[in-house]
Amino acid sequence: MTFYQKLEQHHKKLAKLDHLASICSWDQAAMMPEGGNAARSEAMAELAVISHEMATAPYLAEWFELAHRESLSQEEKASLTEMKRVWRNANVLPADLVEEQSLACSTCEHAWRTQRGNNDWQGFSENLKKVVELTRREAKIRSEATGLSPYDALLDQYEPGMTSAKLDALFADVKTWLPELITQIREKQTHDEVMQPVGPFPIDEQKALSLDIMQKLGFDFHHGRLDVSMHPFCGGVPTDVRITTRYDEADFTSALMGVIHETGHARYEQGLPEKWAGLPVGTARSMGIHESQSLFFEMQLSRSENFIDILAPLAAETFNRIDDPALTPENLTLLNTRVAPGYIRVDADEVTYPAHVILRYEIERDLIEGRIEVADIPELWDRKMHEYLGLNTKGNFTDGCMQDIHWPMGSFGYFPSYTLGAMYAAQFMAAMRKEMNVENLIRERNFQPIFNWLDRHVWKRASLVNTDKLLIESTGEALNAQHLKDHLISRYLG
Amino acid sequence: MTFYQKLEQHHKKLAKLDHLASICSWDQAAMMPEGGNAARSEAMAELAVISHEMATAPYLAEWFELAHRESLSQEEKASLTEMKRVWRNANVLPADLVEEQSLACSTCEHAWRTQRGNNDWQGFSENLKKVVELTRREAKIRSEATGLSPYDALLDQYEPGMTSAKLDALFADVKTWLPELITQIREKQTHDEVMQPVGPFPIDEQKALSLDIMQKLGFDFHHGRLDVSMHPFCGGVPTDVRITTRYDEADFTSALMGVIHETGHARYEQGLPEKWAGLPVGTARSMGIHESQSLFFEMQLSRSENFIDILAPLAAETFNRIDDPALTPENLTLLNTRVAPGYIRVDADEVTYPAHVILRYEIERDLIEGRIEVADIPELWDRKMHEYLGLNTKGNFTDGCMQDIHWPMGSFGYFPSYTLGAMYAAQFMAAMRKEMNVENLIRERNFQPIFNWLDRHVWKRASLVNTDKLLIESTGEALNAQHLKDHLISRYLG
Repeated sequence: MTFYQKLEQHHKKLAKLDHLASICSWDQAAMMPEGGNAARSEAMAELAVISHEMATAPYLAEWFELAHRESLSQEEKASLTEMKRVWRNANVLPADLVEEQSLACSTCEHAWRTQRGNNDWQGFSENLKKVVELTRREAKIRSEATGLSPYDALLDQYEPGMTSAKLDALFADVKTWLPELITQIREKQTHDEVMQPVGPFPIDEQKALSLDIMQKLGFDFHHGRLDVSMHPFCGGVPTDVRITTRYDEADFTSALMGVIHETGHARYEQGLPEKWAGLPVGTARSMGIHESQSLFFEMQLSRSENFIDILAPLAAETFNRIDDPALTPENLTLLNTRVAPGYIRVDADEVTYPAHVILRYEIERDLIEGRIEVADIPELWDRKMHEYLGLNTKGNFTDGCMQDIHWPMGSFGYFPSYTLGAMYAAQFMAAMRKEMNVENLIRERNFQPIFNWLDRHVWKRASLVNTDKLLIESTGEALNAQHLKDHLISRYLG
Repeated sequence: MTFYQKLEQHHKKLAKLDHLASICSWDQAAMMPEGGNAARSEAMAELAVISHEMATAPYLAEWFELAHRESLSQEEKASLTEMKRVWRNANVLPADLVEEQSLACSTCEHAWRTQRGNNDWQGFSENLKKVVELTRREAKIRSEATGLSPYDALLDQYEPGMTSAKLDALFADVKTWLPELITQIREKQTHDEVMQPVGPFPIDEQKALSLDIMQKLGFDFHHGRLDVSMHPFCGGVPTDVRITTRYDEADFTSALMGVIHETGHARYEQGLPEKWAGLPVGTARSMGIHESQSLFFEMQLSRSENFIDILAPLAAETFNRIDDPALTPENLTLLNTRVAPGYIRVDADEVTYPAHVILRYEIERDLIEGRIEVADIPELWDRKMHEYLGLNTKGNFTDGCMQDIHWPMGSFGYFPSYTLGAMYAAQFMAAMRKEMNVENLIRERNFQPIFNWLDRHVWKRASLVNTDKLLIESTGEALNAQHLKDHLISRYLG
């Protein structure tokens, strides 16, 4: 057995443990009764320790060195690169830092669940300071190992190859046109008469509609299922993808759009190449590319007029309301393309969403680089919310800088993925349009060519090439934010 | 840290891995889409290997030796004995056999789910041969390690202390009176006019009724849940017990009685002593004692006339059929105490049930001892079914020798536990009756004293004493099959 093969075997074992952790974590969110939590958390922590020990086994350094000298195919070389990336990420942190972080984050996140509701910035910031301090130590260590700046070293874990220099340029451009675009769209929409559909929409009917749409969007129920959890997510493993949603009897669109979003994530996972199953090179390219698939399904595809023409009668039929004027294609289109600046990121429309991300990016970048401190966050948040979205958040920490779980969890460097995803998605759609008449295909309910394009250019590429190359090979160019701008102008001002 | 403490810590780690395996195994039966099976089986086999490696770590032999010399409390001594029993059981098998078995059983069981419906004995027997071959290897190794016969060495894992010599004697006795008893009961019941309730009984109403009864029987929903699987079982962990059932729209009693049965298992698990959580001494005493709890709930308690007086109006109300003459207490009592030889063990009444078990015991004992082969099973099955229950099963593998999940799963030596359980349950009830008026308590819907008795004498005893001692301490005598015979005569001929 070659050393490359030994490394493959090793990583396939790790993937098997990840498989069980994934399913148990899904269970924890979607199935587990509350009294099971303490023992479950301990059991999962034990598995994490075993996985970490395996992932950092001392003999791996030599195996990597010897594997590099072996004769490998192009794909095997990519595979080796990805294995090494995973190894380096796991290996670089000292065990006591990992443990301290785990404790600080779990303390901070747990307290945050109460503090957020109490608007208790003072209490929260005490815990967050500890998390930031440890994250800075982590970033410094990762920075030394990679040669990247501290923040970039964190970013690199979620979006390999992305840097704050690139993001600064991208987001500086967005900031030149986004506020004006929002104003123009708001003006254009002033006289739209949008009806809010009035519930109740029974949950079993919402579920039936969700399953129907998932089927139409090609979700493979032989390899996945839909359930309910407090915070919707896409989990499980490629052969068994678990997506969740949360139903609200008063409003069916939020669960439905959520399901479509998670279906995009799911199809990426279900479409990953079997040949590379269980290896890092066979996993999703990055968080941004993952988000591009969910946003392609949700924003590019399903909020298009032609798709809503399909969705609306399905909804009307499922809820037995064929005469409900709120469920016409026209009204559902108005509803699903309504633009309104708001406090909450997860509730934001696709036009104002980038503003939420840029704000968070600018704050967390400076925080990790040591240019600002935790105490500076509220003022910066207020200033930027006012500047980007014209909203006043002063004193409202609950719906301001305390709204997201990311920072309390210690996930710094993740936020940019959301807007990168929106940009990638728009760029994929623009490229697809050069090859086929997408609008006609949707009208004809012939989605297969669209899915085939994504499968060929994104899903089956997994991590076989880096993000730049994936974009160039599929769209003819590197990341170009103009496509998102064009999409927004065309949909909202066209 | 003493060596005893080190052993405790080690076993608590093992229990954490078992926790995850339990949940993933429940998921596999109750949630997983079929396409997820191959990868899941491999992932679980990997975890089994890791657990096995941990359970057989070379330093344990020395730890056990040193722990034996330490000063231990009575309970710690029992704990050490049980840890050592688990260790011996695990240690004796080579890792490659364990992995081969895990894979072969998982393959056989998965294929069985389809093959059984197709009456495909040929296809099934090919997989089963492999399972039997590996089980014989296992039995031989265990036999050499314990000095027991190969079959007894398997039996000992489920029912420590039990032997085929004891079973042969017990079952020989049962065979002297059971056929005649069945005939007498059948004659007595000839003129009973039993009405079969006519469906449909909507599944959501059956589920509501099941949950209601579980609540009344003290199931703790903060630490467990009810779901659906093809083959009902009780899984999960004591802090999160997962029971399953299977609903039939045409017949609500089978799911309901199944739920009551599993609730008995669940209460044992939920009632195990927290102080010993994660240690072998804190787990259920044996499969037979486990079954005694499910059968106590199902047979001793819930099929009693007084309990059916509670059950019947609840069912009538849930199904909105208060005037249905098939749902009166009188008719439901007749229905739930109806004795009729049938093909299916899990559908059998408590009188004919032991015949099903004795048949399986005799076949699997001879199979493991090498006196017969897989190919001989159908003919033996047909002959014994004819002899014990007067039924013809020729060519009907689906409802014959392919009906049970045990053999495909590689669980040989398990079947006797069912009838031992019925015997223990009858013995517990007889002892309880000496301390309280059980029938009055049920009439008054005051189940708590009954549960308290079980909690004190069985649940909280876990594996702190062996089965003989548990029986003697709780009932004043060792296993005595006369109590089952008395129970059957009293209920069915009284």
